[in-house]
Amino acid sequence: MQLGIIGLGRMGGNIARRLMKDGHTTVVYDRSADAVSALAADGATGASGLEDLVAKLEKPAAVWVMLPAGAPTEDTITALAGILKPGDTIIDGGNTFYKDDIRRAKTLEPKGLNYIDVGTSGGVWGLERGYCMMIGGDAAEVQRLDPIFRTLAPGLGTIDRTAGRNKADDRAEHGYIHAGPAGAGHFVKMVHNGIEYGIMQAYAEGFDVLKMKGSDHLPPEQRYTLDMADIAEVWRRGSVISSWLLDLTALALANDAELSKYSGSVADSGEGRWTVEAAVEEAVPIPVLATALFARFRSREEHTYADRMLSAMRFGFGGHVEIPQ
Amino acid sequence: MQLGIIGLGRMGGNIARRLMKDGHTTVVYDRSADAVSALAADGATGASGLEDLVAKLEKPAAVWVMLPAGAPTEDTITALAGILKPGDTIIDGGNTFYKDDIRRAKTLEPKGLNYIDVGTSGGVWGLERGYCMMIGGDAAEVQRLDPIFRTLAPGLGTIDRTAGRNKADDRAEHGYIHAGPAGAGHFVKMVHNGIEYGIMQAYAEGFDVLKMKGSDHLPPEQRYTLDMADIAEVWRRGSVISSWLLDLTALALANDAELSKYSGSVADSGEGRWTVEAAVEEAVPIPVLATALFARFRSREEHTYADRMLSAMRFGFGGHVEIPQ
Amino acid sequence: MQLGIIGLGRMGGNIARRLMKDGHTTVVYDRSADAVSALAADGATGASGLEDLVAKLEKPAAVWVMLPAGAPTEDTITALAGILKPGDTIIDGGNTFYKDDIRRAKTLEPKGLNYIDVGTSGGVWGLERGYCMMIGGDAAEVQRLDPIFRTLAPGLGTIDRTAGRNKADDRAEHGYIHAGPAGAGHFVKMVHNGIEYGIMQAYAEGFDVLKMKGSDHLPPEQRYTLDMADIAEVWRRGSVISSWLLDLTALALANDAELSKYSGSVADSGEGRWTVEAAVEEAVPIPVLATALFARFRSREEHTYADRMLSAMRFGFGGHVEIPQ
Amino acid sequence: MQLGIIGLGRMGGNIARRLMKDGHTTVVYDRSADAVSALAADGATGASGLEDLVAKLEKPAAVWVMLPAGAPTEDTITALAGILKPGDTIIDGGNTFYKDDIRRAKTLEPKGLNYIDVGTSGGVWGLERGYCMMIGGDAAEVQRLDPIFRTLAPGLGTIDRTAGRNKADDRAEHGYIHAGPAGAGHFVKMVHNGIEYGIMQAYAEGFDVLKMKGSDHLPPEQRYTLDMADIAEVWRRGSVISSWLLDLTALALANDAELSKYSGSVADSGEGRWTVEAAVEEAVPIPVLATALFARFRSREEHTYADRMLSAMRFGFGGHVEIPQ
Repeated sequence: MQLGIIGLGRMGGNIARRLMKDGHTTVVYDRSADAVSALAADGATGASGLEDLVAKLEKPAAVWVMLPAGAPTEDTITALAGILKPGDTIIDGGNTFYKDDIRRAKTLEPKGLNYIDVGTSGGVWGLERGYCMMIGGDAAEVQRLDPIFRTLAPGLGTIDRTAGRNKADDRAEHGYIHAGPAGAGHFVKMVHNGIEYGIMQAYAEGFDVLKMKGSDHLPPEQRYTLDMADIAEVWRRGSVISSWLLDLTALALANDAELSKYSGSVADSGEGRWTVEAAVEEAVPIPVLATALFARFRSREEHTYADRMLSAMRFGFGGHVEIPQ
Repeated sequence: MQLGIIGLGRMGGNIARRLMKDGHTTVVYDRSADAVSALAADGATGASGLEDLVAKLEKPAAVWVMLPAGAPTEDTITALAGILKPGDTIIDGGNTFYKDDIRRAKTLEPKGLNYIDVGTSGGVWGLERGYCMMIGGDAAEVQRLDPIFRTLAPGLGTIDRTAGRNKADDRAEHGYIHAGPAGAGHFVKMVHNGIEYGIMQAYAEGFDVLKMKGSDHLPPEQRYTLDMADIAEVWRRGSVISSWLLDLTALALANDAELSKYSGSVADSGEGRWTVEAAVEEAVPIPVLATALFARFRSREEHTYADRMLSAMRFGFGGHVEIPQ
Repeated sequence: MQLGIIGLGRMGGNIARRLMKDGHTTVVYDRSADAVSALAADGATGASGLEDLVAKLEKPAAVWVMLPAGAPTEDTITALAGILKPGDTIIDGGNTFYKDDIRRAKTLEPKGLNYIDVGTSGGVWGLERGYCMMIGGDAAEVQRLDPIFRTLAPGLGTIDRTAGRNKADDRAEHGYIHAGPAGAGHFVKMVHNGIEYGIMQAYAEGFDVLKMKGSDHLPPEQRYTLDMADIAEVWRRGSVISSWLLDLTALALANDAELSKYSGSVADSGEGRWTVEAAVEEAVPIPVLATALFARFRSREEHTYADRMLSAMRFGFGGHVEIPQ
Repeated sequence: MQLGIIGLGRMGGNIARRLMKDGHTTVVYDRSADAVSALAADGATGASGLEDLVAKLEKPAAVWVMLPAGAPTEDTITALAGILKPGDTIIDGGNTFYKDDIRRAKTLEPKGLNYIDVGTSGGVWGLERGYCMMIGGDAAEVQRLDPIFRTLAPGLGTIDRTAGRNKADDRAEHGYIHAGPAGAGHFVKMVHNGIEYGIMQAYAEGFDVLKMKGSDHLPPEQRYTLDMADIAEVWRRGSVISSWLLDLTALALANDAELSKYSGSVADSGEGRWTVEAAVEEAVPIPVLATALFARFRSREEHTYADRMLSAMRFGFGGHVEIPQ
């Protein structure tokens, strides 16, 4: 099958490569001419701009936009909407807020354009492992593009089958799903990332308890000096909390158990925030997911106004003077 | 009535003064001779040591120990137990863990000694406002010492009476209660402090949201530059969240709205921690009180191992490099 | 001064009464003719509709809308905007989302209409205690309406002055502030309610720990049967956590220490939710305020899907069968 | 090698079987004679009591106690200590609190007895997958018993090796570690379970957000009816949050996406609680792990006293009447 791809960063470039390796053809564009040339060298058809890209695609055209969420994606989709013809399809593979998908799908529908949102997990490992995809949009159009999705997905691989599954629809087992109408793909991906924050924070807190058990703030007889790398490694094998994130943690710890090259200022992206907002809209309690997000906010501040206010109150009622830590 | 007082720090000294102002007599001891002299100048009988103090007390003697929790209190009580006679009473007015009270009461009982635990709230303001006291121990002995407690307590004051109260026991309205057997006083005081942490954190977080609404991280049209001092002040008057802690906050903000003399390293004392442990023992969910305690722990670290681990995972799955904040 | 008031529920009616008691005049409207008649009997000028109300007001007119947030308020303001003349003012005293204020102010400005948002705390006690008001909008217009605000506010009352305040602007001390431009009033009120949730939850969790200390799930020697009403009462006097919310708690407990007439399904309103969203936008960590909101969500469910999923996992890895509690 | 095993429940029985399958011999005892017979039929030497078991073991004897933590384990170890001879070893493979291990090791050392604590993860799957073991105690004795541990452990299996590991000690890669002195094994296992609670809660909350996105509390245009089973399945393949707990979740959902056979009353065991206590002792913030524990406490109550108190306050300040949910 043929696919247009706009945005040849880490994700977009590897998506093109994974498709071509499986016999698909791609027409690619990036504002960096070098990125286009590099991919053309790998077999893609390079385009010099959006119009050129669309012109080089067979009808009905399908264009995968793989750009940073927000203005870059929005502007590109708006521009594409002016170039594409009825029956063509825009796929947003980035980290778009699902309500933007709903809005876009409504705007594009009267023009006869299809809009597909694809939440994509897999990061830098996707080229090798395949991409786990959560897809929203019209069911028939998702079906038409199935060859693309099936190639990008990890496939059954060596992972054990889940007993009891007996669905005609085998897509989930191959690593991609049609989650629902426009926005549903990004909604599921959003919650995926919200969960990710929670799981990461759970490991991080636990290892902090292990690490600080050796602190000289504790009485000597209560201390253990534990080997973080060995603990992460052993939990990978047969323990209840084995996971891919733990694999990555073990990898990091095997090479630097102090994690000294990191400062601990942790970024967050939209999905964690939107998950909190979605839960608030639904009145679903998510104390762990929200707390995990807040821990990232906190990690980026040396001290907060809130902290200083606590100190001020303590001085106020008890005359307590801060002891520098 | 007569009371022995050991420990003439901010609390112990003011307790002696408040008692004497109301006509009670005190025999006082502190390891600092200067502290003893200062209080003797205010009318107390000074003692040169525990034995001297006990010798100067009429029988049955009552000795109020007002020392830091832990070893100082424990050692003093052990020493007193060897000096006092059956029928005498030890009062621990410090911040002792309630299980230590239970243990001590059991140890002292066979010797014929009474043990009373008094959780005391009021901080540096107690001399003026009176002390809110939560008392544990034998009901009859607490009753015998009632003149002491009634003097130390704030009394009815100008605070509105609570409609519907029609108890014979008017002590709560006067600012002190007999909470139950040994340890019950400190247990109630412990939970009091646990609640205090939660309330303080609630204010602190809210003011942080107000303050950061002026941050230049936000788009200009979404910013407000709010006046923290005015907001605290206005909430003191007629709002649902008026409180004494808010009064203190308004006081701090009126004099320095940036709270710039505080670094934001917030100490915690035993009670907040023990409240978490008590809740865990009871299987009672206290996410807010525990989170407030954890916020204090976090305030004392620049970055945690947990934070660095999050960064390491992010690098592992997404190649994300930390951006210094 | 003269004020038009639309919406004569508990809040609107009492606002009118408090104004008239202080010599102001009011023109009032409510969709319930009975509510209008009742207030007319108290001295107000009744109106039969929005047009009638506006017609009865001197120029420039000021109309206070005191209706439920959302459609009722929005529709009324839209209708008023078509009736009022340049120089007139609309005041929204309800619980509006501050971003709606910003939008409305922008829409009304080209028509020459002023828009003032007033966040009002005080609940059913406002008639007696006065209303704590946080006001957003044009500074000059807020100043022009000052007689109204000053009357509605609690005033200095018997509350101790805050040492160190030396501002020319004494409004905060009288119980109202001009917080900033349009929306700033409701923004401050929103955070006020967010804090309120946190404080309420802190008390609630603490009392739960006290209450459950008597549970027969604990070994007998670890139990205390504590008197909730006495504890709330004693904390009102001299303790660090005395507050108006505690006064109300003591009142409730004095009359029913089991709180048996409540089921424990706790509602929430927009402000708590919007506070979470505002903090997320600002990247300010508010674990306590968010957790307090989530506790309310949780209180309204008997069991969640999340709970069942935990049970399913426990069965999955450990064969653990649920024990009915 | 030869091992005595006391306690032939799900764990103890399978441990015996896994050892015998690999050529070790076992002498086994359980208070249920049937359990002993069943294992004898599988090749074990049955014992009629502790003395008989010890008598049937070669010297130095090693006895693995696999009983519920608390009194059953404690009493058995006390009894064994009276029977075993210097040089013999007691292994506690249960879920013991690590401070009990420290105490026991101290008590047994003067008698010449070794004490080894083994935290074991793997649940009902251990017979097949092997047991992930975290071991505390004397290094030399742990080394002597290595053939036992190596057999019980999962081994390298098909799990990818962690790049960068170049330790002489390959035990972690085989699924077991010597964590440190007495108690260190159970300490690491304790934190493992604390993390487990956090991860489980993260998934559970996320799925709740997904599930409730179809709730008819939301406006129709904001709803998605998502397929929980497909989502769990797709995340198993290439997503960042793939894990064994997710595998189990997918398994449960494939067979009953409503999880209707579970009520949602979630039990907790000691480890989650002790993790909170350890973190409090260390002053390490673990808001996510603690919140996950509290969610379990909350899941077991229909309504809490805390909830009712919130309702009482809301009635107090706002006249709000509870709406039954």
